[in-house]
Amino acid sequence: MNNIQSCLLLIDGGGSGARARLCTIDGEVLVTGNGGPANLSTDFAAASANLHALAQSVYQQAGRPTSCWSQDYAYVALAGAGASTKRQNLINSFGFKKMQLATDVDVTLAAALGTEQDGLVAMLGTGSFFVWRNQGRVRRVGGWGFILGDECGGAWLGREVLRATIRAYDDVGPRSELTAQMLDRFEGTPKAMVPFARDAHAADFAKLAPLLVAAYEKQDEVAVEIFDRAVDMLCESIGAAADVPGQHLCFLGGLGPTYQKLMPAAYQAICHTAKGTALDGAYWLAQKEFAL
Amino acid sequence: MNNIQSCLLLIDGGGSGARARLCTIDGEVLVTGNGGPANLSTDFAAASANLHALAQSVYQQAGRPTSCWSQDYAYVALAGAGASTKRQNLINSFGFKKMQLATDVDVTLAAALGTEQDGLVAMLGTGSFFVWRNQGRVRRVGGWGFILGDECGGAWLGREVLRATIRAYDDVGPRSELTAQMLDRFEGTPKAMVPFARDAHAADFAKLAPLLVAAYEKQDEVAVEIFDRAVDMLCESIGAAADVPGQHLCFLGGLGPTYQKLMPAAYQAICHTAKGTALDGAYWLAQKEFAL
Repeated sequence: MNNIQSCLLLIDGGGSGARARLCTIDGEVLVTGNGGPANLSTDFAAASANLHALAQSVYQQAGRPTSCWSQDYAYVALAGAGASTKRQNLINSFGFKKMQLATDVDVTLAAALGTEQDGLVAMLGTGSFFVWRNQGRVRRVGGWGFILGDECGGAWLGREVLRATIRAYDDVGPRSELTAQMLDRFEGTPKAMVPFARDAHAADFAKLAPLLVAAYEKQDEVAVEIFDRAVDMLCESIGAAADVPGQHLCFLGGLGPTYQKLMPAAYQAICHTAKGTALDGAYWLAQKEFAL
Repeated sequence: MNNIQSCLLLIDGGGSGARARLCTIDGEVLVTGNGGPANLSTDFAAASANLHALAQSVYQQAGRPTSCWSQDYAYVALAGAGASTKRQNLINSFGFKKMQLATDVDVTLAAALGTEQDGLVAMLGTGSFFVWRNQGRVRRVGGWGFILGDECGGAWLGREVLRATIRAYDDVGPRSELTAQMLDRFEGTPKAMVPFARDAHAADFAKLAPLLVAAYEKQDEVAVEIFDRAVDMLCESIGAAADVPGQHLCFLGGLGPTYQKLMPAAYQAICHTAKGTALDGAYWLAQKEFAL
């Protein structure tokens, strides 16, 4: 691979890990790889070390020396990249011919819609956020973490199930198979939920979401109430289906397909699958950015 | 005081401190004092040390040697006392003639209603809980902490204000003077709220509640929406005013008076002030318990 004049390194990184693709300028995939967490705002030193290790690893697999970085391009999309004050430090530490740092929101949008299509992306994973593109203008809502926001995401759903379980236990909310199941997980009383809730991270609450989805499929009363409320909140966040730019709505994330099926028909009618993966999105953005 | 045959020590303790009263069997107050936190479930060793220090201090102030404990009575109401497995250890460590360990819920009920009156106590402080007494039967709702419950308490209100501020910032909820004021506290963006929310304890969120109360008094749109929702939840937790035992409703805690004024007229019509303080409640319970 030493004889290829210029290559393009694509990275999509976040709090739980990073994915990389080394490809030719034309997009031919040479090598892919996975690395450690890379959230620039949370821990710059760790993110930088993980990104260097990942880049070196894919170059080594491709048999291309890292001395080629000075003639190669890199497009790196990272959670927390927008807020970081050390963007330039990271870019300088690599020494690529050209390197662009983008955010996870940028690549999510590109992956879902490509680089031109107007539309709205609803990302529903552990957290949640919404991004609109309308004639080149981009607007984001949400993504502030599940304590104060991230409504309808997995962590939010998990916490709502525990709340409903406590209200059922206290006899001020309905009991169901789901609330009984949750109580069983916590030794039959809310007492053990209190320290769990105090120490739990978003991912811990989100682990309860699949139980809720399964209960919804059985039309469990409590699960239906929570999802009805979640869908109302989604519609409020998204706005009217008629106002979605380009009539192009794309649900992403682990809970994306679940919510898509639950939305009112007017929204379902304008749903489209994503144009590609996050690394595809990074490639399309890199093509534009570097005029490849 | 050495010549009084038997005295009665009353203590009301919780996570933020403890209050004590040494009195005669007839209730004549000899000495009062304050001590450190005493939540049996959270930290037994610290609670035990603080309670011993407090008891010794009031006995010393009263000029009564602690050797009199063997002929004295103690009624000690502590947060977390219900769940603790070390109740008997604590009782044995003092060596009173008779000592009763009760919970903060027991004394709250006695303070609000006395020991006989049927009624409902709504405790609205940093957290929230509700206790009914109906012909001797006691039922509790809430008090599970603000992450999963404690609806309408100060911590819950503080978090709701931040949520509403983020929704206003994202332009999916109404803006108001209150949301502008909260944004100002956090450098104009929700970014600084995210680490605050991650690290905040209930008391930190509760510190925001007075701003919300002040905004409500000016009929701030967002404050009104949050309190309307809170009052709806309160009515749901309390049940219909017609069903309140003895038609006797008592609002306690720092937010008690605020909520009492906001409740629908049917509830306000059956509101009564508390019969006494927590230490009064402890005295009435001690009289019954020890048949004094």
